[in-house]
Amino acid sequence: MKVNGKNYTAVWMEKGVVCMIDQRVLPHSFKILRLPSSEDTAEAIRNMTTRGAGSIGAAAGFGAAQAAAEAAKGKSFRSIFSKKMAVLRKTRPTAQDLFHALDRIADVVTPLSDRPEIAVNMARAAAEALSNEYVENGRKISEYGEKLIPKNGVILTHCNAGWLGLQDWGSALAPIYAAHRAGKKIKVLVDETRPRLQGMKLTAWELKQEGVPFEIIPDNAAGHYLKAGDIDLVITGADRIAINGDAANKIGTYEKAACAKLAGVPFYIAAPVTTFDPACKSGKDIPIEERDHDEVLWISGRDRKGKITEITPAPLGVTAKNPAFDVTPASFITSFITNKGVIKPAKIAQFCKKLGN
Amino acid sequence: MKVNGKNYTAVWMEKGVVCMIDQRVLPHSFKILRLPSSEDTAEAIRNMTTRGAGSIGAAAGFGAAQAAAEAAKGKSFRSIFSKKMAVLRKTRPTAQDLFHALDRIADVVTPLSDRPEIAVNMARAAAEALSNEYVENGRKISEYGEKLIPKNGVILTHCNAGWLGLQDWGSALAPIYAAHRAGKKIKVLVDETRPRLQGMKLTAWELKQEGVPFEIIPDNAAGHYLKAGDIDLVITGADRIAINGDAANKIGTYEKAACAKLAGVPFYIAAPVTTFDPACKSGKDIPIEERDHDEVLWISGRDRKGKITEITPAPLGVTAKNPAFDVTPASFITSFITNKGVIKPAKIAQFCKKLGN
Repeated sequence: MKVNGKNYTAVWMEKGVVCMIDQRVLPHSFKILRLPSSEDTAEAIRNMTTRGAGSIGAAAGFGAAQAAAEAAKGKSFRSIFSKKMAVLRKTRPTAQDLFHALDRIADVVTPLSDRPEIAVNMARAAAEALSNEYVENGRKISEYGEKLIPKNGVILTHCNAGWLGLQDWGSALAPIYAAHRAGKKIKVLVDETRPRLQGMKLTAWELKQEGVPFEIIPDNAAGHYLKAGDIDLVITGADRIAINGDAANKIGTYEKAACAKLAGVPFYIAAPVTTFDPACKSGKDIPIEERDHDEVLWISGRDRKGKITEITPAPLGVTAKNPAFDVTPASFITSFITNKGVIKPAKIAQFCKKLGN
Repeated sequence: MKVNGKNYTAVWMEKGVVCMIDQRVLPHSFKILRLPSSEDTAEAIRNMTTRGAGSIGAAAGFGAAQAAAEAAKGKSFRSIFSKKMAVLRKTRPTAQDLFHALDRIADVVTPLSDRPEIAVNMARAAAEALSNEYVENGRKISEYGEKLIPKNGVILTHCNAGWLGLQDWGSALAPIYAAHRAGKKIKVLVDETRPRLQGMKLTAWELKQEGVPFEIIPDNAAGHYLKAGDIDLVITGADRIAINGDAANKIGTYEKAACAKLAGVPFYIAAPVTTFDPACKSGKDIPIEERDHDEVLWISGRDRKGKITEITPAPLGVTAKNPAFDVTPASFITSFITNKGVIKPAKIAQFCKKLGN
């Protein structure tokens, strides 16, 4: 997608150097980090320079390719590669795509351990292919989802399910980008998404760069606009989808889905099919992570002089609750927009069986 | 209610000087402003040192009593009093209680214009009586509402409908204070209430001072806790109540009421009966004020060094929508807790006729 008029993915490789958009300083600055070694790439994954399933996966793939190249320069390819892979593996212990990516590259490299120069080339090719798969998944979601957006539609979205976290296109925002590129006169209402404000910070930044018309709204205003008939459809992402169609996503998604249901407004969840979890029977099986309450009490941004500052609006010494996700029941979800097509909640179990995943 | 263990009302008069809690610096500092003249009091109402229907009404009443005392020292009582009242009248042009209070004092003073010393005493007594009426309304709401709170209840509230804006007790918080004083083991979940964060700033401060157990939650989390069965009842205030039982209140109230309805959790609105508007047939007649979008984009608070600072988390040059209120339909409201008793939405029209208001 576009930044200052130029096309980017969240992470890429140039002559053995991993490059990534520094998401820690967005939306206040746009910086590219250049990471010459697999250790540098591992550290950038760990400290969340890049984040989001697809971007972590792509970064891990490229990092593993760097690890292979570094191992090829040493005495024992097998042992060096394995040590460097272990460093990458420890960066984000809950990111499924991290392990998926590292395993993919290891599967290519390991059988070629006695032919390091070929292993290095194959690792790079596999990392590029993996990155392209993420891009392609997003593009497919954009194609299927675009058809659901009317010519003059107002779309509500929650949090950031954009291209920054999925290499390119994104999930919830992918259909929006496609509709905009297709010339549809759309407008996006962006929930600011407290407490971490990923809507106000990242979705707003992405849409602005791509030139899609949008306005930020307080999360509290979404129900009001849904009730008033000002919104044609809602699209959000998901972190995990149970086979009965219940979906876990950023806290607040449930409220918006409930209000959409009451207003009769279609509510879509866009996600790659890897988000379906066949081991998860219903939303009841999804544990809700409780995060540090300072994420609620302290807010960071640019002050009047442009300096990044943290403030708290609260009295000193108070406590807050900070559940990271909530579960939207299948009955509130119109359909899932995936890279394999648009699927009704009731069809997910059957669909997962067919996929064999 | 208590501040640092001592009892306060939001506004009071001491030997001709109007005193008020400076609500502009809460929750970061606790300051009392002393206002020796009616002009000082007028300026404090205008610049929102005090805010909220009851506190504005009480301040205006005391300011009018000051105006009478100042007029009694001049050559022409009638003309000086009338000029000073005009200054008070211009401070908050949309505050109904301002005019109500000023008219109340003028009605006492005007017939006594040729006996200034009596007029001054009567004006002071009338201002004190008016202030006591606000306190008494809150106390009545606290009594009626307390009965609805279980012995070990978790209560959700939105925005600040506390004593700071209603002289004492408050509306939504009044039953909570009474339940706490009655020894019930309650806990309050306080919606932070974006964009202006009155929950995180003022409700949290009030509850902390009174010693009521509470936790702040992001507005987005309310639906999650309602669905999970973690909340026993919801109480909010209202800005205006139509005779069909639809109620306008701070933006976000509709979402919480919708989620309470879906979860089968009782949703109460607490307000003095003056909030019923017999001229307003339904929520459709209530215009929704759109406020400056900087209230959404800029957030103020204390930085790590304790300095009050404004920051914006958003990219530069974006726009936001900022509807101040929304309308909760009567069908989502269990009952109204008023100073005249607990009233079902369907009974409001009949009740207003009986009141003759």
